[in-house]
Amino acid sequence: MKTMNILQEGTFSEKGMKKLLVHDSPYFRIINFNFKAGQELPIHSHELEGELSIQILEGEGEYLAKDRSIPAKTGDILICDIAEPHGVRAWTEMRVLVTIAPPL
Amino acid sequence: MKTMNILQEGTFSEKGMKKLLVHDSPYFRIINFNFKAGQELPIHSHELEGELSIQILEGEGEYLAKDRSIPAKTGDILICDIAEPHGVRAWTEMRVLVTIAPPL
Repeated sequence: MKTMNILQEGTFSEKGMKKLLVHDSPYFRIINFNFKAGQELPIHSHELEGELSIQILEGEGEYLAKDRSIPAKTGDILICDIAEPHGVRAWTEMRVLVTIAPPL
Repeated sequence: MKTMNILQEGTFSEKGMKKLLVHDSPYFRIINFNFKAGQELPIHSHELEGELSIQILEGEGEYLAKDRSIPAKTGDILICDIAEPHGVRAWTEMRVLVTIAPPL
């Protein structure tokens, strides 16, 4: 059993998104990504079984999907297959939590 | 691929915590629990393989563990085995997101 605060521990960088591994196990991997406005997790996919969630903890931006984008703001959660193209772009400073099950 | 807003869709009830199934698949189950002050998810465990996270989306309260409690506020995340005793008690109105992998 462990706890942490995902709104306080992650940092930001002008050089690119910052990544903080919150948890990793055979069951799921939880990662906090922090973005300055304009930064992004580029659209990508992996040819693997499993699903992931992309939760917006704070801020505004857009989810990146194949041939489209979907507005994203605090409280939004996107769920998709690991094999489906997915990404995130920040319009404001943005904190994001990604959960991958099972981990890659 | 699907999206929802977990700060807007769940409701509260004076009668007890409200539960909203956000997602269920062979990979993980995601549930939003909303509590009025004083309500709780009583401490419990299941003799199963796997882990879960309990994330505080909004509000203040405490995590319930074996023989102790741990303060819980917005942004906190607790990760534990499904087999470890766990629960949550709300001190204020509280929104919580629970992710279980693999689902029970």
